[in-house]
Formats: sequence, C-alpha cells, structure tokens
Amino acid sequence: MGKSTNIVWHEQSILKEDRRKQNGHNSFVLWFTGLSGSGKSTLANALAARLYHESVRNYVLDGDNIRHGLNKDLGFSDEDRTENIRRIGEVAKLFVDSGQVVLTAFISPFKADRELVRNLLEDKEFIEVYVKCPIETCEERDPKGLYQKARQGVIKEFTGISSPYEEPENPEIIVESHLNSIEESVEKIISYLKEHQLI
Amino acid sequence: MGKSTNIVWHEQSILKEDRRKQNGHNSFVLWFTGLSGSGKSTLANALAARLYHESVRNYVLDGDNIRHGLNKDLGFSDEDRTENIRRIGEVAKLFVDSGQVVLTAFISPFKADRELVRNLLEDKEFIEVYVKCPIETCEERDPKGLYQKARQGVIKEFTGISSPYEEPENPEIIVESHLNSIEESVEKIISYLKEHQLI
Repeated sequence: MGKSTNIVWHEQSILKEDRRKQNGHNSFVLWFTGLSGSGKSTLANALAARLYHESVRNYVLDGDNIRHGLNKDLGFSDEDRTENIRRIGEVAKLFVDSGQVVLTAFISPFKADRELVRNLLEDKEFIEVYVKCPIETCEERDPKGLYQKARQGVIKEFTGISSPYEEPENPEIIVESHLNSIEESVEKIISYLKEHQLI
Repeated sequence: MGKSTNIVWHEQSILKEDRRKQNGHNSFVLWFTGLSGSGKSTLANALAARLYHESVRNYVLDGDNIRHGLNKDLGFSDEDRTENIRRIGEVAKLFVDSGQVVLTAFISPFKADRELVRNLLEDKEFIEVYVKCPIETCEERDPKGLYQKARQGVIKEFTGISSPYEEPENPEIIVESHLNSIEESVEKIISYLKEHQLI
C-alpha cells in the first residue's frame, strides 16, 4: 500500500455497472504495445474515431500527451518507464470505472509492467493489442527522427536499439502494421470486440 | 517540462468539443476543497448521483480511492501533498478532455496547488467548491477517527491541527455543511451549473 495510511475506501453510490448501462456498452482498456514507429498512436486514434461514430464513449491515453502532463516528471530510465506505465495503468482503471473505453498507446516494453496493469483490472477489462512491426520498418519510417538520434547516441536507452522490447506472449490481438492497412487493423479489432460482446 | 524530452504533441482526430456534443453537456471539474470531515466526499457523491440521473456523464475522484491507486506512493508531507494534487489535476484534465464532468474531493489545503490545477484547465473548466465548516464541527463528526489520532500525535501533519488549511479567497461556490443539508447543497450547485449553462 506504500505510504498512504489512515484511509478507508469510499463506496460510491453510482457504480461502474450503472455507468456501463447508461453508455450502452462495456468499459475496458485496449492496451496497444509495440516499438516506436510501429503505428500504435495512429491506430489507436483511428479506432477511437470509429468507436466514437458508433457512440462508444472512449478516450485515448497517448505516450506523447501523457508525458506533457501527468508524467512530465519522469524520464526514460528503466525505473521511470515502470512508474510511467504504473501511473497510466491506474488512470486507465479510473476511466474503465467511469464506464469508458480507454485506448492506451505506449511502447510499454516490459512484460512485467504490462502484467501489472492487467492485474490492476478485472477479467476481460484488459485487452492487449500487439502492434507488430519489424524494427527495420519502424526505423525506416522514423516519423519523429528518434531512431536516427538513438543511432547517433543522442538518445540513450531507446527501445529496440539500446533498451529491450519484450514481446507479448499471449496478447488478445496481434496486428501487423507492415502487412495490414490501418483500416484492416481497425476492422480486426472491432470484430474482436463485437465477437466478445464488449461493444 | 521536466525530464520528458523527444516528444511531439499528438493531435487527436476526435476532439473535446466532439465528445461534449455527443454527451450533450459541457465538461469541467467541480473541485471540492475543505477540512477533513467537512463532507466533501459525501456531497460529491450525492451530486454525482444527481448528475447521473440527469444523464450527465460524470466521475468522482476521491482522496480515499486515488490514494489506493495512482498516488499510493505518496505520503502527507507538504511536498507529497503538492504532488498528490498535481497528479489529480492532470487526471482531472484528461477526464475533462474526454467530455466528462469530474468531481474531485480532496482537502487540497494549499492555495498554490489549487491555483496550479485551475491554470492547467481552460476558462470555466475549473469550478472551486469550498465546503466550509468550522473545525470544531469537523472534529466532533470525526468520521474516521483522524482528529483524535492527530490530537494524540499518532498522525503527524494533519490539516487544521498540525498542518495549515488555506481558505479559498474567491471560490465559485461556497456551501456550508454545518448549516445546510446535503440536498440543499446539491441544489445550490445544480443551480449554479444550470445558470452558467454548464449542464
């Protein structure tokens, strides 16, 4: 429980199930993981737009925008990466509790960190989406010029170059961004959600 | 910006305004501040239930439940209290961006911390609700037995006893929990929100 003591859990009168019922769909996390440049944010935002048009209340938590706010005190050491993911997991849990679908787009390179988030949530609330793409392709795309900086040693601890990426072993969904279009990947995820009666 | 570098802001295709339109109401923070035992959580949860029944998408962030999750690494020193409020402010901002009304119930004793959160948000997105109540009444209520522990010196740095509470100077709303019932206070806040065309 860390340093927080003298606390009692406050029972809310309106519960997660009530909010889900009001929204007309389940609430859960779509956790996109993959290398920098694999297309996580692009795919998450395309899916978010699709869900919006189906009246599914949803929100994207993005490595880029979270790091300007909640996690702006964190860097890219292993310890800070772990704390980064922990906080995002806790925020995602709050969004799920609020009845929304939350899409998170973070490299999240460490399996233990992703499992920590999975364990924060209830069964079927954590859907891991592995955005698979060869590092050569990611490096060719290099949308933010980060691979170049990593190769030059300007950026230390860059995932796939100087810091490890641990592939998911049993992700709920795998999409391959070098083989499939964004539209195809969106459809694949939508199909999964409908088959599992999540939306 | 802290330690986060090599980041570009990611433009989302679905915007806050789109989500507000879909929900049929504005999104903003109702920031409840006041002494321990003043009735912040009780009032926030009563208001949340009322908003829910008016189909206003809303969520309560509560000192008690946030500290079991996102902020479980923080204690009650001045520094940790400030970081506690900063993180809550950033999370509240994400909820506002997602189109929801967020009700926060934290002592938030320091004026500078509350101003920091106000400044994170846009104009009219931060509504400070001062739950005013004499400390003698709070101490009589002492729902969690915390005042007693503070008087015994078991709890250090307890707001109002051994740590300061800085009263809001210009809160948008003041409710007085020793004079008005929960229902009256809920109605006062609902009236404010309707008058200002926020819901």
